[in-house]
Amino acid sequence: MTSSASYNFAAGPGIMPREVLMQAREELLDWQGSGMSVMEMPFTGEAFQAIMGEAQRDLRELLGVPDDYRILFLQGGASAQFALLPMNLLPPGGAADYLDTGHWSRKAIAEASRYVRVNVAASGADHDYRRIPAQASWRLDPQAGYCHITSNETADGLAYHWLPETGRVPLVADMTSDFLSRPIAVERFGVIYAGAQKNIGPAGLTIVIIRDDLIRPARPETPSAFSYRVQAESGGRFNTPLTYAVYIAGLVFRWLLRRGGLAAIAERNRCKSDRLYAAIDGSDLYACHQRVADRSAMNVCFHLADASLTAGFLQQARQQGLLNLQGHPAVGGLRASLYNAMPDAGVDALIAFLRAFAARHA
Amino acid sequence: MTSSASYNFAAGPGIMPREVLMQAREELLDWQGSGMSVMEMPFTGEAFQAIMGEAQRDLRELLGVPDDYRILFLQGGASAQFALLPMNLLPPGGAADYLDTGHWSRKAIAEASRYVRVNVAASGADHDYRRIPAQASWRLDPQAGYCHITSNETADGLAYHWLPETGRVPLVADMTSDFLSRPIAVERFGVIYAGAQKNIGPAGLTIVIIRDDLIRPARPETPSAFSYRVQAESGGRFNTPLTYAVYIAGLVFRWLLRRGGLAAIAERNRCKSDRLYAAIDGSDLYACHQRVADRSAMNVCFHLADASLTAGFLQQARQQGLLNLQGHPAVGGLRASLYNAMPDAGVDALIAFLRAFAARHA
Repeated sequence: MTSSASYNFAAGPGIMPREVLMQAREELLDWQGSGMSVMEMPFTGEAFQAIMGEAQRDLRELLGVPDDYRILFLQGGASAQFALLPMNLLPPGGAADYLDTGHWSRKAIAEASRYVRVNVAASGADHDYRRIPAQASWRLDPQAGYCHITSNETADGLAYHWLPETGRVPLVADMTSDFLSRPIAVERFGVIYAGAQKNIGPAGLTIVIIRDDLIRPARPETPSAFSYRVQAESGGRFNTPLTYAVYIAGLVFRWLLRRGGLAAIAERNRCKSDRLYAAIDGSDLYACHQRVADRSAMNVCFHLADASLTAGFLQQARQQGLLNLQGHPAVGGLRASLYNAMPDAGVDALIAFLRAFAARHA
Repeated sequence: MTSSASYNFAAGPGIMPREVLMQAREELLDWQGSGMSVMEMPFTGEAFQAIMGEAQRDLRELLGVPDDYRILFLQGGASAQFALLPMNLLPPGGAADYLDTGHWSRKAIAEASRYVRVNVAASGADHDYRRIPAQASWRLDPQAGYCHITSNETADGLAYHWLPETGRVPLVADMTSDFLSRPIAVERFGVIYAGAQKNIGPAGLTIVIIRDDLIRPARPETPSAFSYRVQAESGGRFNTPLTYAVYIAGLVFRWLLRRGGLAAIAERNRCKSDRLYAAIDGSDLYACHQRVADRSAMNVCFHLADASLTAGFLQQARQQGLLNLQGHPAVGGLRASLYNAMPDAGVDALIAFLRAFAARHA
């Protein structure tokens, strides 16, 4: 199997833009005549500060981040943010609304419950996690310090295709798996956070976008390195950032700008996922139970009508270079993640395989 | 300036082994025929689990880590560990001994003081941070839950060349800047931790080596992702690790094994720093005030007898491809970091420059 014939459908870490990897390879030993790999650069030096500054500016341009929001490049991934978010936003005894829409919002709720009184405003469990609960059904807590959503459920294949209305209560979103896949009205959110390993770059890098007025002193027990305020006030110089991951993310931001920005990428993503869902819906061998209006464009979760064929499906797909199509272990079934970097040709190859496999098992 | 003619003396992130960077470049688009870059691999998949397992085994072999110690690959850097260490080891109201030997131990003390009663057992301030206080002068707290040292002071150019005796009290060391530069008697420590960006790999990766009996439930306010116990019990699968940094670190471990392990690398490091210190001590233009017995082999801190020449020195050095020789901002002066990856030729070039610069200013 050669790399040119394979497509990586992993849910993340997952496929990255080939042009980005090629540029990273080109510059790996010596970044632009600096005599250093980016991995070797002192983070306070001119070269790396230029890299980080450009990444910040490009991300701000891509998302249209308003001037009264800060972009923080942090560490630890979204799982760490599940705790660090309430530690930074609310005092002990504070309350927050959480929407339970699947595997990752349940993780966020479990961790946040150690720090705040969590009100689960609505739960997808009522519909077996096949839809995003309509806002009319939400029971919001008027005392909530924030309202937390998971904008895309990686394991369940659901996404918000509308923006909740939370009034004065700041809306907070874990956007790990759909960040940069479509435009966002940043000004509608108080905080947006995302782990990098889907559409941004190497795992570990964690982006937090926060409205200035929400940058408060964290709880006293918060490690200084994880205080939004400490990091914001130091301009990201409090401790050594993930220098190499920031550099790769910067290459991804440039790649997105060259491709026309987030509106253009969203259109491509919609086309890719629409075609795949159509192929799934058009065959009796495959099924996707998620409500059409709530389906994720990033993570297409489906299964075989005859579950006993799953292992054979995965094995034959792998032989054809269609990699990492297994569903999340907590959910099972199949999953094709179609991040920004997945080319149309990858979707074509998967659809052709779905049809050929179905023909063999008709 | 070409990369082959330049040497990077940065204190970290700093120079990495060229062979490691070349292998990383070779494998960047496709790791061993997997069809994926390591950055793109799902972390629970076979390929990455093999990479992480090999890195664990090689590190255990390099250091001779006893069976009753766990190696954790964490995130956040040493600055985060300054808080996470007391959160994981001691209850509120607990006490710990800290040795103040320079800039980085003061940082560790300031952060730990937010969590435990810190007893500064001895301070280098009494000698202007020019020596490591002899153990005979330490005033240890019999109630201490652990005793913390900074085995190498990156900013001050000091290192322990002996092991403290702390009896039943676990010895804990921040080894960020000398980890893997010399053999360690791991069995003499309760916990060893190190940020990666000196001798291990890309910034962010944080290694914790902990004796099994010290793995306890962390304080309730500790984010789960930063609990030693949670991470140890999950085998590093609690959340997505820094996959690419773990891969690079694994390449570095293999590189060290090929070079004969830590005894051989320590001998080379001693030779490199001995020659540089001799050049400094042999000239009236340069001075190193650190006590000879306590000098660091990793970070050679020195200054010009005439401080007004410093800017010119740095500029001319840079023109000759001798990069990042400025001292830590908090200390000033000059600093040449001689990590494992610094070749003899780099030390030769620096010594030749020191002599030529001195001749010009005689």
